[in-house]
Formats: sequence, structure tokens, C-alpha cells
Amino acid sequence: MSGHLAVVGLGPGDARYLSAEAQDALASAQALYGYAPYLDRLPARAGQSRHPSANREERTRACAALTHAAQGARVAVVSGGDPGVFAMAAAVCEEIETGPQSWRALDLTIVPGITAMLAVAARVGAPLGHDFCALSLSDNLKPWEVIEQRLDAAASAGFVIALYNPVSHARPWQFGQAVERLRRHLSAATPVVFGRAVGRPDEDVRVVTLEGADAAPVDMATLVIVGSRETRVIARAGRSPVVYTPRAAAKVSA
Amino acid sequence: MSGHLAVVGLGPGDARYLSAEAQDALASAQALYGYAPYLDRLPARAGQSRHPSANREERTRACAALTHAAQGARVAVVSGGDPGVFAMAAAVCEEIETGPQSWRALDLTIVPGITAMLAVAARVGAPLGHDFCALSLSDNLKPWEVIEQRLDAAASAGFVIALYNPVSHARPWQFGQAVERLRRHLSAATPVVFGRAVGRPDEDVRVVTLEGADAAPVDMATLVIVGSRETRVIARAGRSPVVYTPRAAAKVSA
Repeated sequence: MSGHLAVVGLGPGDARYLSAEAQDALASAQALYGYAPYLDRLPARAGQSRHPSANREERTRACAALTHAAQGARVAVVSGGDPGVFAMAAAVCEEIETGPQSWRALDLTIVPGITAMLAVAARVGAPLGHDFCALSLSDNLKPWEVIEQRLDAAASAGFVIALYNPVSHARPWQFGQAVERLRRHLSAATPVVFGRAVGRPDEDVRVVTLEGADAAPVDMATLVIVGSRETRVIARAGRSPVVYTPRAAAKVSA
Repeated sequence: MSGHLAVVGLGPGDARYLSAEAQDALASAQALYGYAPYLDRLPARAGQSRHPSANREERTRACAALTHAAQGARVAVVSGGDPGVFAMAAAVCEEIETGPQSWRALDLTIVPGITAMLAVAARVGAPLGHDFCALSLSDNLKPWEVIEQRLDAAASAGFVIALYNPVSHARPWQFGQAVERLRRHLSAATPVVFGRAVGRPDEDVRVVTLEGADAAPVDMATLVIVGSRETRVIARAGRSPVVYTPRAAAKVSA
């Protein structure tokens, strides 16, 4: 008897973004684990148990789901966006590496989803249309100096930068400091996109510049895309502007 | 009469990865434009015209679709993976910027999809579980020196690196040279993942090390993920290994 654990990406929030593979994985699970608001998005199913947990409890949640699956059950852990991008898949892998050998025998499936930067980018055009990086601003699990080094490296080499976890209640200053750091490399006119709750009723997507980026409202659910030197804005009469990064990069970066 | 243009991501190849939003956009289009093999994946619909084109004709395809939409039609351009990642969305934006003003008046929708790096990552675990970048190795549209600078910046700062367009018939040496470049920064044991045709019958996903990476088969449809110093491999008896990058990065990068 080998249990099954699926780590399932729900996409950015609306069921329209869910893949058929994710729907199947959710429908066939005997037990669902996840952050409570994510579980609340899913329809109740007869014979399927639910195990909600708080936001910061990734490790406990992963252990509980692995333990349950190792009893021979079909278990799904749900994750916002894509489970492989700053989400539950890495947390589950960490526990498999350090946990009992029986967890390595589990049938493990990661079901990808549309991660926040892709959803936010799609709303404004194609800001990730050329080389880009994804960087978490949370210094809970890495030193702030590492984050600054990565901001420097990415901006000076010409990557567009998608910032995950820009701030939280416990980390109020990180985003402002990151913006200051990026100003060393990028002009004040660099386009910056803020996106939140894409596909949900409270969706909020704004296009500003690096000059005003630290004045824009930002919270832990906001995804920020900072353009490169190449990123462009197309004004449109009566419509929101289009932001995109051309496929060609002619200039040699500093 | 304002036409409508949707740029729709099909995901990595199998219909299981298609979102409901993408299905709706395809079903409601009067005309479909795209690379011929992508159009071949979609069911025929009465009253919907099809306009296949060759692989390298992004610009012509974008112009034709914009022209058609500006006549008042509902037009969809299909794209593999996510249209915003080295795909059709940026090509469409480039044409909007330089084309007639009427193209700016179009109702433009980008429908995100699961891009190749997310699909390949999911197959092996969570190699993109921490900071990462996406970099195209094609030097058709940027100088090779820019690519080398970006490889240096990303690897030395500790980003996992997803390489798109690693080689083509016209660019046979780029991938081998990129691997050599990365060896300046990363140990021979660094995990490297090759993924191709995820979700299709000819799917091929392999885990090797940077030492042997230039001997692995690679083509223009292959997506390569090069780990960081933190990326780990978990051996499993009778199962494929799990590759993941932990959420914590304790070390300060060089």
C-alpha cells in the first residue's frame, strides 16, 4: 500500500485559472490540506476530509499531509498560484528529505499552476517578455544582504524583476529599501506594475514608475514587477496602458 | 465597432494544462492564428477560421491577427506555454506600439498559461522553490555577450536558472558554451534538469549534473533548469529522484 500525495496549484484565485489536471487531482483526493482561505475556494465533496491551517504553518501542514498519505490515503495539499514558486512544493520536499524513509516511497505528484507573476503580467501586456527573475523579499529565511546582492545582480544585468512577498506586518520596511536599492541601477521612469487578487472581485492592478513605487499601496498579497531598461509603456486613449519588454535586447548592460 | 484580440496560452502541450479561461477564449474566437502544430492541437469548430504560420514568423503572425481584429472580429493568437514568457504576447505588443493607432483601440486580452519551466519543475519536485530567473539562450535578438553577463550575474548571485531556447539548428554551440560559463560559478555536482514535451506521449525529463550537462541531448523544445548552490537531490529507491531548492538560503553568495 503506497499512499499518494499531490501538491496542487490553484492559480491566482479564480476557478477560471484552474487546469483540468488540478481539478482532477482535487476531485480524486480523500483529504485536502491547505491554508484555510485556499480551501474555502473549493467546493465541498462527500467523503473528502478538510484540514485547514494558518498561513505560516507550511512545515506542520506538509508533515501532517505526508503522515496521512503514508497511511495509504490519497491526499492533496493545495497551494495558491504554482506550488513550485515560493509555495508548498519546496516545503513538502524539505520534509521528505528529513523525514522517515516511508515518505520517499510515496507516489508524489506536483500539479503546476499559473503563478502570480504570470497572471499580473498578462493583465498589463507582456512585462516578462524577455529575460526576468523572481525574487522573494522575505528575509525570514535568508539574510537581507543576500536579497540586496540579488537585486543588484538582476537589475544591473538587465533582468526584469518579479518581487514576491514584498512586505508583511512583521516586515514593513523591506519593500521601500528594495526600491531604493533598485534606483541605483534603474532610471526613475522605469515602469513598475503592482498586482493583487487577479481574477477576484477585489482585483487591483496599477502601473507606476520606479520614482513613485514606494508610495503605492503594497501588502503581502501584492506581486510587483519592476521593468528593465528595455521595458516600455504604450499609452492608449480611453484604455489602460500596455506594458511590455521587447524580445530584442540590443544594448550591452553595464 | 472595436475588435478583440486574445493572446492565449496553451500550456506545455496537453489539454489537461489548459485553463477554463483559455478554453473560453478559444471557443469564442472567430479566427485562430498560430504556429501550425499549436493550432493542430485544438478541436475544429464550425464558423471559426484558422490561419497557421511557421515557427519564426511571430511578427507577420501578430500583424495579420491585429489587422483582422481591427476589422471588428474576435481573433485569438495561440501560444505554447504562457504567451508572456518568450512567446507571442511581446511580439503582439511590439506591433501595437509601431502599428496604426487603430490597433491601440482594440480590446486586448492576454490569457496566461503554464510556462515550460513550471511544468518541467513540477515533474521533478521543486527546483524553482526559491529565487530563480528565466533566460533565453537565443542570440538572434541580443548579443551573446549580454547572455554571458546574465549567466554570470544569475549564477554568482545564487539564482536557479531556467534556460529557454537552449539550441536550434542555426545555433548549435550556445548551450555548450553556456554550460562552460556556468562552471565558473557552480560546482560539477550542481543538479541540472532537462525537460521536453511535458504532458505529451514523447515526454522526456532527465536529471543530470553540471559536469555531464553538455553531453545530454538538447533541442529547441528542451527547457533546462540549472540549480543554484542550494539545490538538492533526494534519492528514492525504485523511484525517480526529487530535485528541489529549499526555501531558506543561509549562505551569503559570492
